[in-house]
Amino acid sequence: MATFTDIALSGGFNILFVFVFFLAFAILRLQPLNDRVYFPKWYLRGIRCTPTRSGHVASRFVNLNVETYFRFLNWMPAAIKMPQPELIDHAGLDSAVYVRIYLLGLKIFVPIFAMASCVLIPINLTGKALSSKDNISFSEIDKFSISNIAPGSHRLWAHLAMAYVFTFWTLYMLYKEYKMIGSMRLHFLASQDRRPDQFTVIVTNVPPDPDETVSQHIQHFFRVNHTDHYLTHQVVYNANNLALLIEERKALHNWLVYYQNKHEKNRDERPQTRTGFLGLWGNRVDAIEHYTTMIEKLTQEADMERERVVSDRNAILPVAFVSFKTRWGAAVCAQTQQTSNPTLWLTEWAPEPRDVYWRNLAIPFVELAIRKLSMVVALFFLTFFFMIPIAFVQSLANIESIEKVFPFLRPIIETKTIKSVVQGLLPGIALKIFLILLPTLLMLMSMIEGFTSLSTLERKTASKYYFFLLMNVFLGSVVTGTAFDQLSSFLSKSASKIPVIIGQSIPMSATFFITYIMVDGWAGVSAEIIRLKPLIVFHLKNTFLVKTEQDREEAMDPGSLAFSASEPRIQFYFLLGLVYSAVTPILLPFIIIFFALSFIVFRHQIINVYNQEYESGAAFWPDVHGRIIFALITSQILLMGLMNTKEAFQSTPFLLVLVSLTIWFHLFCKSRFEPTFVKFPLQDAMMKDTLERATEPNLYLKGYLQNAYVHPVFKDGEDVCSQILDEEERRPLVTTKRIIHNINAGTSKGTFV
Amino acid sequence: MATFTDIALSGGFNILFVFVFFLAFAILRLQPLNDRVYFPKWYLRGIRCTPTRSGHVASRFVNLNVETYFRFLNWMPAAIKMPQPELIDHAGLDSAVYVRIYLLGLKIFVPIFAMASCVLIPINLTGKALSSKDNISFSEIDKFSISNIAPGSHRLWAHLAMAYVFTFWTLYMLYKEYKMIGSMRLHFLASQDRRPDQFTVIVTNVPPDPDETVSQHIQHFFRVNHTDHYLTHQVVYNANNLALLIEERKALHNWLVYYQNKHEKNRDERPQTRTGFLGLWGNRVDAIEHYTTMIEKLTQEADMERERVVSDRNAILPVAFVSFKTRWGAAVCAQTQQTSNPTLWLTEWAPEPRDVYWRNLAIPFVELAIRKLSMVVALFFLTFFFMIPIAFVQSLANIESIEKVFPFLRPIIETKTIKSVVQGLLPGIALKIFLILLPTLLMLMSMIEGFTSLSTLERKTASKYYFFLLMNVFLGSVVTGTAFDQLSSFLSKSASKIPVIIGQSIPMSATFFITYIMVDGWAGVSAEIIRLKPLIVFHLKNTFLVKTEQDREEAMDPGSLAFSASEPRIQFYFLLGLVYSAVTPILLPFIIIFFALSFIVFRHQIINVYNQEYESGAAFWPDVHGRIIFALITSQILLMGLMNTKEAFQSTPFLLVLVSLTIWFHLFCKSRFEPTFVKFPLQDAMMKDTLERATEPNLYLKGYLQNAYVHPVFKDGEDVCSQILDEEERRPLVTTKRIIHNINAGTSKGTFV
Repeated sequence: MATFTDIALSGGFNILFVFVFFLAFAILRLQPLNDRVYFPKWYLRGIRCTPTRSGHVASRFVNLNVETYFRFLNWMPAAIKMPQPELIDHAGLDSAVYVRIYLLGLKIFVPIFAMASCVLIPINLTGKALSSKDNISFSEIDKFSISNIAPGSHRLWAHLAMAYVFTFWTLYMLYKEYKMIGSMRLHFLASQDRRPDQFTVIVTNVPPDPDETVSQHIQHFFRVNHTDHYLTHQVVYNANNLALLIEERKALHNWLVYYQNKHEKNRDERPQTRTGFLGLWGNRVDAIEHYTTMIEKLTQEADMERERVVSDRNAILPVAFVSFKTRWGAAVCAQTQQTSNPTLWLTEWAPEPRDVYWRNLAIPFVELAIRKLSMVVALFFLTFFFMIPIAFVQSLANIESIEKVFPFLRPIIETKTIKSVVQGLLPGIALKIFLILLPTLLMLMSMIEGFTSLSTLERKTASKYYFFLLMNVFLGSVVTGTAFDQLSSFLSKSASKIPVIIGQSIPMSATFFITYIMVDGWAGVSAEIIRLKPLIVFHLKNTFLVKTEQDREEAMDPGSLAFSASEPRIQFYFLLGLVYSAVTPILLPFIIIFFALSFIVFRHQIINVYNQEYESGAAFWPDVHGRIIFALITSQILLMGLMNTKEAFQSTPFLLVLVSLTIWFHLFCKSRFEPTFVKFPLQDAMMKDTLERATEPNLYLKGYLQNAYVHPVFKDGEDVCSQILDEEERRPLVTTKRIIHNINAGTSKGTFV
Repeated sequence: MATFTDIALSGGFNILFVFVFFLAFAILRLQPLNDRVYFPKWYLRGIRCTPTRSGHVASRFVNLNVETYFRFLNWMPAAIKMPQPELIDHAGLDSAVYVRIYLLGLKIFVPIFAMASCVLIPINLTGKALSSKDNISFSEIDKFSISNIAPGSHRLWAHLAMAYVFTFWTLYMLYKEYKMIGSMRLHFLASQDRRPDQFTVIVTNVPPDPDETVSQHIQHFFRVNHTDHYLTHQVVYNANNLALLIEERKALHNWLVYYQNKHEKNRDERPQTRTGFLGLWGNRVDAIEHYTTMIEKLTQEADMERERVVSDRNAILPVAFVSFKTRWGAAVCAQTQQTSNPTLWLTEWAPEPRDVYWRNLAIPFVELAIRKLSMVVALFFLTFFFMIPIAFVQSLANIESIEKVFPFLRPIIETKTIKSVVQGLLPGIALKIFLILLPTLLMLMSMIEGFTSLSTLERKTASKYYFFLLMNVFLGSVVTGTAFDQLSSFLSKSASKIPVIIGQSIPMSATFFITYIMVDGWAGVSAEIIRLKPLIVFHLKNTFLVKTEQDREEAMDPGSLAFSASEPRIQFYFLLGLVYSAVTPILLPFIIIFFALSFIVFRHQIINVYNQEYESGAAFWPDVHGRIIFALITSQILLMGLMNTKEAFQSTPFLLVLVSLTIWFHLFCKSRFEPTFVKFPLQDAMMKDTLERATEPNLYLKGYLQNAYVHPVFKDGEDVCSQILDEEERRPLVTTKRIIHNINAGTSKGTFV
């Protein structure tokens, strides 16, 4: 059992890690060579550019000003200083609201910890239940927890009362935050410049018409049913093949540049390559010539495909972006049902052009329903049975089978030290690889489900990931075993016994979670700031692929917040904090440090590094809110189970009331605030329309909207991965394709259309 | 245990009852005196009128034509003969769709029974598990059931396969029916004449404005935000007090007429009454004078109140009926969010004027949320703890306490026979009274929840009632005991054991449910056709209150379908049928007879008797569909439990798949069909608008809509209970107030505003 010394030691180590990371960050970021890795956002905004070539040669690569190293933590106040309106303007509402989740964590848990230290910790410490026992199988941390209270003690009423206080405080904070973010969103939407998506609605499931083309049919339909408001529309081409071709060409182009650079450095020798897979086998050919001809061939193919797509009637999908003369007209069309058959002419607000996920636009209604069903089933099996294939891989990936397949490795493996290392690592590696691939896998599942915008894809993936974390990490750590073990054991146990079983293990897992918070939370967050992977990738690209300043611009990878993977992990800390607030409040300071650290780090990152692929206007907040509520209810039910093992049966009805109140609060907030995140009120639309008519009476809106929603492959014939020229957005944007590329890397492209 | 003879005897008795009822009906309805009781609908439609005064005196009261008595069942073919379009035209879509629920029951269960008799009954009969046992504690019915199959037998695969077949058949029928009723609704809405509710939206939660009156504020808001579409609006006055006064005067008026009639019959004596409660005590006064002055006083009060309401600024509620120039404009306003605060300016389709429940119009948003929460809690306690107050009343209502309160009754009660009767009846009476009052109580709860239309009130009450029936009647009969016993026993049992416990009791309850179906179903339905209560009430009123032909018209009570109480009971038979279809299919013919009988009886009633208070366009169908799906899932889970007790564990995953498929089907149907029942498509609105503009270019719509939504007390100053003069409806309608009167009878009026 962990003693205080253990915890302190582990804490010391982790604090050391954090400081090492921060020091490394301070040193690395001060080197001009790394400037594009640590300040890409400023480059993208055009405020910063590559250090001037004048001056000492070394100073272009290494910072020789010793003084700057002493102020190595001064990025922290700088990160906090930027006021919120400026931050929203600089990084977008999505990012600004995202860091507020950490702030919300602080707002909830600092007062809760203060209250708990005044009331619960003294009560627990003087409980004496543990010291009187003979067995010593309890950690010292447990003395601070409810475990130190004797069963049936009247002191448990204090825990019950504090559960009420904590719940009400959390709900109050949640209410305030929801209200605040709702008004931030409205203000953000109201203050935005003119954007194509304000006037545009995406129409899916356009029924086929024997006499008209899709385009004509759409035009007639909206001319008739939105007579005064319809302006124009853009059909969507099925350009998935074309996009693949262009993507392929991009990869070849990178190889070409690589060999050209190589040739430039060594003029005497022409670089060679093999024609087979990855240049590993096949005939030797001249690399530059080979790639030049390959690229030419692909360019021809792409041109043919482009012509085919544009001229082929069947390449037009039954989907369109329909634009209206006014925001009011678009708001009306997006919120109403068009025809008596609710599976046809479905209208929705168009996501902004960067946010569109083009591949999923053409899925018919019935197929969508089937895809949803299959993904729900898949998620269930993934969560509860993921250990089965991993165990299978593990059973294969033992030394004997490796020796069978690669007999030439035998002499190396049979070495004793290597053998033990391989045997120790192999089973873990399979699991680790799975866990690293998991967010990608879940994103793929969301894609198969058929959502049509990147923001929705990220939100749905986050939900799936949270479910997985909850079942496997939280329950898996509390009641040891995989989710599948728990599923079968819970099914065979009484419904009212389940919270009791989990509840009584809760205090015992406190020390484990404290260590977990320090390793995964503290060290993980401070590792984030070093950006090790982008650092390496940038320098590799810079060495081999960069020729012009524009190439260098492209080699830069600002990254983004990766909502789908990181939000569920924040939620996990909310869950831990709420569950332990009334049980082992001594865990809270660790969580508070995590939230504070994360707040500073991520605020710094969104100011200096990340560049969001899209802007959804904080559309994810209802999900964040809902999951915190869920964590709150979980904590109440587990406390109920715990109280039962403490023979405080009278507390059950009180906690049931608390659960009902929390659910009611959620429903209330849902009806009160959620529409703000889903609908667009007519009053605001009318206001903006009126203002615009007054200030710009001669605006030629049709021209403005004409090409706003064109598939990226048609927008920029030369390079699909270059930036989309969104005329209205003054700052350059990264194309929507990048996130998809990241995700697709390593997954079969054929599995979804 | 019930043998075949028992069942046959019980069946014989019940069939006898049915015939007696039908015979009584045949005799009663042929008497001209009862014509208004059995054919009120035709009177209301103006097609039938009181038999002519010419001819034999006796023939005005008694039918002397013997021949007609022999054709005493000829109303049955007549009831079936009317084709559906005519029926919809005659009785409205609500009623026509309501009887289709019975037809759906036949469509589902007749083929299921046919399949079951070919496959399951032979398999069960030759099972021999029961005959081989020593104990004889099984009924002969059980030989037809799954009980006769030995545990672990391979024959159980047949039951599993049939569960699949039955499920798919039911789902297919449900899908067809949903589609059919959706298109019936659309066709109905499209073919309707111009009605005020097509152009009108109800706006609630209008925020207060310091500078403007409510009316001005509404006008300005809609002028600005629906510039091209806003036409006019009507504010709502808080006339609840006025309505009470006028109601009271109506009651006094009835008494006046009663005494006037009495005086007319006996000119010598002026009738007298006492001034106290119900004329039971107080000073003796001349009755006619007394009531005349009372009525005058109330009329004055009502006039003052009416003036106060109209002139008082505070009597205007923050609610209005806003009308638009086109159906398109109204459809847009009803489906969109108006302002950034989603709790203000809430818009919804206006219910038709008859359907408005005026009392609930002014409940603020937050209060609504609190009311909903408290009613959910109340329903929970009502369902699970209703036995507690009843047991308390029962403990009070014993002979000893009656003797204490009414000592003068002692000699009578102490008589031995009376004593035993009282002791036997008293406990049952308390429960019976509760069950009779239950639908009223549930309706009251729905009213407190704050729904604003009668159709919604009825639908929500039906949901509550179904929940109660399910928990207390179904589970209560299968696993003997009250719902509360079950709740506590289930909570203490394993989640996967619950279906097993219920499942294994299912076959044993078959004989009980067969008897239940015959008594409650067969006899209950055939008793419906006699209309005993309206028959008595009509003759009482006819004798004492009727002076003019118009009075007679008012004395007629056509009644209505009482969706809130009768639909859950149909659903109960669906549940029984589906649960027993794979277990004891011999129960199905009893249900089939119930559905057939009900179909004929209710089709006759909606043609000749009932007069719907409102027309919701079958808006209740999604509820009906959802509850049948729920019954289906229940049946699958219970079969799973039963299979487990039969050691057919392999069947569990198959049945889980079936459950998932059923849930998925439900979600699919929900997204496919439900919008038809909730929204109004813009295309249809535009079509009707265009047509109207072409056919009636000079229509003065504003005048038509001006007074459509006026509180009934202002519409008819003389008599609130008389018919609302809905200009467009050609057939006379019964006021919306009547149903409320029925419901309010016996409940405190002060509990809701």
